[in-house]
Amino acid sequence: MIESLKNFFYPSSICIAGASTKEKSIGYELLKTILHYGYTGKIYPVNPKTDEVLGIKCFKKINDISEHIDLAIVVVPKLYVEETIDRLISRNVKSIVLITAGFKETGLEGESVEKRITEKIKNAGGRLVGPNCMGVINTSDAIKLNATFVAEKPEHGTIAFLSQSGALGAAVLNSLRETDIRFGHFISVGNKADVSENDLLEFWQSDPSIKTISLYLESFSDGESFIKNFADGKINKPVLILKAGCTEAGMKAAVSHTGALGSSDRVVTAVINQFGICRTKNLTELFNSAKGFESFPLPVGNKIVVVTNAGGPAIIAVDALEKEGLQLAELKEATKMKLRDIVHPEGSIENPVDLLPGGTAEQFKSVNQLVADDDNVDAVVSIFVEPVMVPAFEVVENINSVTADKPILQVVMPLPEFWNQYRINSKYKTPLFRQPEEPAKVLVNMLRYKNINRTVERLKPSKSVLELKPENRFLSPSEINLLAEHYKLPLIKSFVLNERELGKASFEIGFPLVLKGLSSEVIHKSEAGAVAVNIRNSEELIEASIEISKRFNRQGLALDGFLIQPFIKAKHEILIGGFRDPSFGPMIMFGSGGKYVEVYNDTAIKSAFLSEQDIDDMISSTAIGKILAGVRGEKEINISALKEIIKSTAQLMLDSEEISELDFNPVIVSSEGEFFIVDARVKVW
Amino acid sequence: MIESLKNFFYPSSICIAGASTKEKSIGYELLKTILHYGYTGKIYPVNPKTDEVLGIKCFKKINDISEHIDLAIVVVPKLYVEETIDRLISRNVKSIVLITAGFKETGLEGESVEKRITEKIKNAGGRLVGPNCMGVINTSDAIKLNATFVAEKPEHGTIAFLSQSGALGAAVLNSLRETDIRFGHFISVGNKADVSENDLLEFWQSDPSIKTISLYLESFSDGESFIKNFADGKINKPVLILKAGCTEAGMKAAVSHTGALGSSDRVVTAVINQFGICRTKNLTELFNSAKGFESFPLPVGNKIVVVTNAGGPAIIAVDALEKEGLQLAELKEATKMKLRDIVHPEGSIENPVDLLPGGTAEQFKSVNQLVADDDNVDAVVSIFVEPVMVPAFEVVENINSVTADKPILQVVMPLPEFWNQYRINSKYKTPLFRQPEEPAKVLVNMLRYKNINRTVERLKPSKSVLELKPENRFLSPSEINLLAEHYKLPLIKSFVLNERELGKASFEIGFPLVLKGLSSEVIHKSEAGAVAVNIRNSEELIEASIEISKRFNRQGLALDGFLIQPFIKAKHEILIGGFRDPSFGPMIMFGSGGKYVEVYNDTAIKSAFLSEQDIDDMISSTAIGKILAGVRGEKEINISALKEIIKSTAQLMLDSEEISELDFNPVIVSSEGEFFIVDARVKVW
Repeated sequence: MIESLKNFFYPSSICIAGASTKEKSIGYELLKTILHYGYTGKIYPVNPKTDEVLGIKCFKKINDISEHIDLAIVVVPKLYVEETIDRLISRNVKSIVLITAGFKETGLEGESVEKRITEKIKNAGGRLVGPNCMGVINTSDAIKLNATFVAEKPEHGTIAFLSQSGALGAAVLNSLRETDIRFGHFISVGNKADVSENDLLEFWQSDPSIKTISLYLESFSDGESFIKNFADGKINKPVLILKAGCTEAGMKAAVSHTGALGSSDRVVTAVINQFGICRTKNLTELFNSAKGFESFPLPVGNKIVVVTNAGGPAIIAVDALEKEGLQLAELKEATKMKLRDIVHPEGSIENPVDLLPGGTAEQFKSVNQLVADDDNVDAVVSIFVEPVMVPAFEVVENINSVTADKPILQVVMPLPEFWNQYRINSKYKTPLFRQPEEPAKVLVNMLRYKNINRTVERLKPSKSVLELKPENRFLSPSEINLLAEHYKLPLIKSFVLNERELGKASFEIGFPLVLKGLSSEVIHKSEAGAVAVNIRNSEELIEASIEISKRFNRQGLALDGFLIQPFIKAKHEILIGGFRDPSFGPMIMFGSGGKYVEVYNDTAIKSAFLSEQDIDDMISSTAIGKILAGVRGEKEINISALKEIIKSTAQLMLDSEEISELDFNPVIVSSEGEFFIVDARVKVW
Repeated sequence: MIESLKNFFYPSSICIAGASTKEKSIGYELLKTILHYGYTGKIYPVNPKTDEVLGIKCFKKINDISEHIDLAIVVVPKLYVEETIDRLISRNVKSIVLITAGFKETGLEGESVEKRITEKIKNAGGRLVGPNCMGVINTSDAIKLNATFVAEKPEHGTIAFLSQSGALGAAVLNSLRETDIRFGHFISVGNKADVSENDLLEFWQSDPSIKTISLYLESFSDGESFIKNFADGKINKPVLILKAGCTEAGMKAAVSHTGALGSSDRVVTAVINQFGICRTKNLTELFNSAKGFESFPLPVGNKIVVVTNAGGPAIIAVDALEKEGLQLAELKEATKMKLRDIVHPEGSIENPVDLLPGGTAEQFKSVNQLVADDDNVDAVVSIFVEPVMVPAFEVVENINSVTADKPILQVVMPLPEFWNQYRINSKYKTPLFRQPEEPAKVLVNMLRYKNINRTVERLKPSKSVLELKPENRFLSPSEINLLAEHYKLPLIKSFVLNERELGKASFEIGFPLVLKGLSSEVIHKSEAGAVAVNIRNSEELIEASIEISKRFNRQGLALDGFLIQPFIKAKHEILIGGFRDPSFGPMIMFGSGGKYVEVYNDTAIKSAFLSEQDIDDMISSTAIGKILAGVRGEKEINISALKEIIKSTAQLMLDSEEISELDFNPVIVSSEGEFFIVDARVKVW
């Protein structure tokens, strides 16, 4: 699969089907950009109406090209796309970028054409990028391909960028001379009819010229495969994602609390964090972090020092660092002694180190060197607001010359002229940041990446214990009992009875007990008044059953029978649940339970491909988890039992693909610290 | 007070004490900037060593200036500051900007000099800006004063900006040619020895040339006065704040849950929201919103339409709008019919309206006009990614020419050349935004401002019912009873007894009851095992008292006696509390109560200067408030009783300035929906 993508970035020859002599047309601008950027391979423009375009030979038909074509870029009008693809296939072209739009994104008709074209290409052993995309770039000197219609000359670097939106890709390329992002590869994947982020992740992982992978996505083509790439340790380069389309709507028609709380955007955030990917909030964060990975060593720890000539921006930087959970480094006494000789007496030798507006280029260099050499420091944020008396360029270049194996991220707030001067004259061209709050996010992303354990053991699916058909129903109590037994889930014992049997069974369980009215029409029992707790004797039992019957009657609900179970006094109520995300597959939830779960929403979700660490994280990231682990010296609950239940529930979700949602709610924690699942609902597709 | 500030922005004559002939020195650059920008008044440089500086006459001594001096800017070395100030006072100069640094910010000695100087100026009826600041700007044609050392020529506008940090002010001025912010007034207030944000708020409120007030603050000089300005309806221009120094530490040595949860940053956010001020996260947000207020009409409602030629950026814009609680407008059928004639058939006439990359300037204009004319639309976000075939400048200017009484915020993602072209050639110079997520914040700030009720009734302090001395202690049960009676707080009746009296009092209260062990050493009773609930008879009472005695013994705590009160079965536990913020004064808290309050932190805080709306907001912004107001058709609790308790507690905090913290926790909500304060702790300074 990797090999099949190579020609998209490393073609020796390209054919531009639909090259044009008409200025401002895509077919013209694309070819112009290719020529302008200096592509090193052979170029075969195709246009039935001309022999020459932009000074190079143009072919009337694809068949007229006798040489081998590594890559075809198709920009012909929609009407001619299928014909063009057929000809490319007949010429044995394996890599096709279809830029033309008007397919799946326009409706059913377009979708069916797109599907047909894609099948043809795949059947012929080829790969398709697009349709509805804006091309590819490889900046390496050996290739020098800018096959997009943004006529910029991107600088070479080691960042790969995939954009699901062509326009967003264009916006990023438009601003390159302001943002100074250095791409290795750029690709716009459009409708992702064939090549998707999953292919490119694998490709870039294997391409040594790429150090950092950045993605703009509006949807995941196959979320479960995406995360498995990470779960299986196949991807270990830094991956940054800007995911747009953050609808907060929960699962369509969710019937469980778990489903209702598992909105698609929460799922995306959860899996991204779980597998060590970085989710960024906007383009600035995305590329700032990519620059961080590209140009700086990874920080070893979270202790940061701020160096500045400006109080206000330093405070803003510190706020941002603290918000991200980073710490201000405590400088060593020896460092402070040396700083005292450099820093103005009215400045500060404590962190943030303040050189005052008079701080010179030499002082900035010495101070950065000193703090970077301090063992208590893991990274430096150096802030410079350009004053009248000290030119920014000198300061920045001096700091660039500091030798350190720690990241030194510079924030510069200069007069506008500085940026061009730096672009042209800098010897180092180290990325700079424009706002004091920016480095915090970069550092935290780098640190998170550094701390991922890529060899961690995770749960794996095994054989399902029940043979289930996808038939949209709830599991019966006996099926649930089977699952509970197999997965060692502490389901409370319970009996389903009709009215007349109530008296007998209570002897077996003993008092106090809980009585529940059963009805296939009732989803949340306590809301329907179907639950009576702490029933202490037979009279109370009969009374409660009559009361429940009455309530059902009043609500027009059919009473299918009763369920009794032992009454356990709850010290806490928790929820453990699972659901199947349409893209990412089996998910697991843990949190505060009871009837108000959705109001409190004190829950954590993760992909069911759990590691031990994931389970610990789920517990510690919720308030109820903190309470169970012992707040203010309270006695600790048996947390390892809790972990086993979460793990078993995840295993169950992994094993039984037919289960769409399940709620164990409440799971009661008794005052002895034991766990009892007192209500379990499991739904099949 | 307002008059006294006028000469800082509208001086007819200025004296620069410390003008210098030395390039790059502050005294030289400041004067150069004043001349360069074209100040319209008279300039009197003072320097003992020269007769001329930068081509104008220089005075040896302040006393040599025979004319009246409206404003003095002092840049002399620290050593000469006091002497200079003395001379200025003797020359009857009332407005002094002290730029020189080295005072309070450097320690106790500097602080005492600063205090002395400030007193002198104030005693002479003058006002001081600074020290440790970087000057003032008034861009109006009648004045044209740039008395800072950033030699930019700021464009004229209606935004006022106060910066507590000189360096941050410099950074903002440095980047003016990139950010295109148009200031009316700019002032750097440095150490705020005299003139503070409170003075300037009042001044700018009264100055018709200022439409929007923006503040960068690191501290509030007097938070309580600050918010009273708003509470009393004195400030009704839009006010935007970037507040740095967001330490999350709670009140120092807080003894109550309320105090521990009331971190200074939460307080700032709470009061800013309560009084209709906008808090922004960073400089970009601050000035984007200021531009919004400056250049666009306020939106009437929250229904927004997005117009675009680029899918991806439109999705990012929609994400941001939804995150801010804004809605996508549902376009009228008639509008869509008309759009159909303009928009490409493969584009979209639904919101977001997508013209595709081929969308022309004329199309953008017509579409923006059509959607702006739609009654279902309150504001337009128009996004343009510059493609090869359509130049950005034309599109932007065409959209600028649309006539509408609704905001049309444009996001432009062009080639870099565009920005200068727009700066030089635009007829409209309407502010533009660079990223698709930016307009959402601007619109939500404008909408919030529009919806403030400025004539709302608020609680006011009245006479304290207790005469308290500031003596660092907890109020006794009888004092608390007095307060409860006066403020009609539903404090549960309780009796304090010694061991032998236990039997008797229980008859008066009746069973079931609650027994608590009392100790001045115990702050949180349940954690010390000092509480036994649901005691049903005398034997249980005796047992429980023995058990509590034992526990105290084990912990080495003195048992001062017992307290008994009726046992009310809790359906819910809430917390109502109060604390006194060092800057903003009396604050009030409402939320989930019980022993886990700090883990859940389901609380809302507000200044005790409450309106009815504030109380409703506090209740509805917490999970417990939503539950009490009735979740999923549950029976509603007596919310008006709850509101009365919150209101009375706030009134108590307003009336009794000696009370530093109070916790009513838990306040029990019985299954009948009644409220009982079962534990009250009130601390005096």
